[in-house]
This record gives sequence, C-alpha cells and structure tokens, in this order.
Amino acid sequence: MTRERRGLVIVNTGDGKGKTTAALGVALRARGHGYSVIGLQFIKSAARETGERAAARALGFDLIPLGDGFTWLSKDTERTVSLALEAWDIAKGHILSGAFDVVILDELTYALQYGWVDTAEVIATLAARPAGVHVVITGRGAPEALIAAADLVTEMRAVKHPYQAGIPAQEGVDF
Amino acid sequence: MTRERRGLVIVNTGDGKGKTTAALGVALRARGHGYSVIGLQFIKSAARETGERAAARALGFDLIPLGDGFTWLSKDTERTVSLALEAWDIAKGHILSGAFDVVILDELTYALQYGWVDTAEVIATLAARPAGVHVVITGRGAPEALIAAADLVTEMRAVKHPYQAGIPAQEGVDF
Repeated sequence: MTRERRGLVIVNTGDGKGKTTAALGVALRARGHGYSVIGLQFIKSAARETGERAAARALGFDLIPLGDGFTWLSKDTERTVSLALEAWDIAKGHILSGAFDVVILDELTYALQYGWVDTAEVIATLAARPAGVHVVITGRGAPEALIAAADLVTEMRAVKHPYQAGIPAQEGVDF
Repeated sequence: MTRERRGLVIVNTGDGKGKTTAALGVALRARGHGYSVIGLQFIKSAARETGERAAARALGFDLIPLGDGFTWLSKDTERTVSLALEAWDIAKGHILSGAFDVVILDELTYALQYGWVDTAEVIATLAARPAGVHVVITGRGAPEALIAAADLVTEMRAVKHPYQAGIPAQEGVDF
C-alpha cells in the first residue's frame, strides 16, 4: 500500500444511539479491505447471543464479551474492579501485540468513569501501540484526557429516541 | 418471533463522522439475525470500490451506488434533478415492496436539502411502507419534517476530527 497508513484512536461517545453501531460499521469496512479486527465488549455478557456476534463471525472476526459478571450496578465492588482489570489486561495485550489492524473496545468508558481502570494507563497503552493499529473506544462519558489523546471523537447526541414513544428495543437494530 | 416487530425510521444526521458507519453497523446486526438488507448510496459513485461494498457482499447484502454522475456541485441542474429523482424512484420501490427488512438510504438528505427530491413525498412513502420495514436515512442537514416523522434520530457531532490535524482519510476506517 503506497498510502500513508496511520492508526487512529477513535472515540464514539455521548448519550445517543450509534456508538457501538458505528464501531461495528468500522469493523465491516475494515474487513472489506481484508484488515484483521477484534472487538472486545466490556459490558455485554456472553449469555445472550446477539446478531452482531453472528455477523462478525461471518465477516471473519470475533466480538468477545468480557462483561460477564461485572456491572456498574454490582454491589461487590472489589470483584467488579478485579474483573474490569482482567478485561483491560486482555485488551491491552491485543492493542500492543500488533496482531490486529483494528481493536474495538466497546463500552470501555464505563470502566474509566468508575475508576476501575486507570485512564492514564489506557492512554499510555495507546501511545505505545504499534503504528497502524486503529483503536475504537465507545461508551458514554469518555474522560477528557482520553478525548485529548484521541484523533477522532464523535459525540452521538439523541435528538429523538423511540423508547420515549414507548416502542421497545427492536431485534436486528438494537441488538 | 414472539416479540413485537415494529419497523423504525432511523435518521443519522449532523456534521460529525459515523452517520454512514452506524448505518452499516445496523446492516451488520440485521444480517446477523438473518434479516434481508439493501443499501442505496445516493452520492457515492460506483467508480471506486470500497471496503464497505465488499464486506456487504460477504454478509449477503448489496450496497448499490446510485450517485454516478450527479452531485450537488454539478452545474447541469436539470440533469442532477432527473438523476436524483431516478435514484429516489429505485429507493421508493424497495421501501414499498416489502422485499427487504432493512432499507438504507445513505446520504439521501442532500437530495432533500437541495430540493431535488420532495421531502413530503419521502415522508408519505415511509408512512405507506409495510409494517416491520426499517428504513435508515443518513446525511447532514436532515429536514425538520423528516426528523418529525422519524422514530430514532441521532445527531453525530464532531468533537475532534483528524483532518484538522492534517491526517488524511484512512482506508478501512473512512472508506
């Protein structure tokens, strides 16, 4: 490839829909070019099989739910923190290995917001990654320091949401 | 499926990145559930093969560029309008046929903004579509009337953009 290949740090944040969805769209495009992709889901549990996971397999990449058993609602804080750190260690390994062209860290921001994972450590890891590796981070409330370290930041703002009108989440669109 | 199936009109608008990308993410999820999908690209030309088109094929759906030869920069307004209307007629057919569970109208808003395609006609077509058909419309400057008619509207707001820092568009992420 003659074109300059520069890995980007992409952050999709804000209260609106489309943060994870846009990350999946990046994965779709990247796979279309034959790039290797891995997606790590920090909150989602493996218990529920989602359309996105099946489609990812069809496109030749894995979306791995790391969220089992930890949630920001859990009362066992110590366990929550240790599970979040375990998930982050897996992510860190994939970011630094250079084995993937695109690494998606879905809903990582919650672990940062709650202080389970250190934002400075995440930023240092991003800075140390092999050139050319794109990292996509999603979730509400991305810390300012992460935004400062990112190349591309989009805020998804909810203008109108169907749940407001009493329409339930729709298979194939929402999950 | 026992769950209520209700087709949504989804609009991704705003000046930020991720409008088309999130529409592709919806397509990925929908294909993962085995739903039929078609994507119509109102601005993009067929001349350039994109990663998204190749990945769409791998997932079993078509992303069809209808943008050939018309652009909002064209000086031949009459030709532009007739080509935009031709593209809209194709879209309308797919929306009303019920042959697809998800219809993506990528960058349709530009044709509405410039008045080449009548927004009221688009809204009437959406209202007349078979129940269960999801329609995803992307592009900057979605008309207020379309926003009022939609179920889910997200504004993608650019917080930080790599072009500002002189980084060129990246294959696999931007196209």
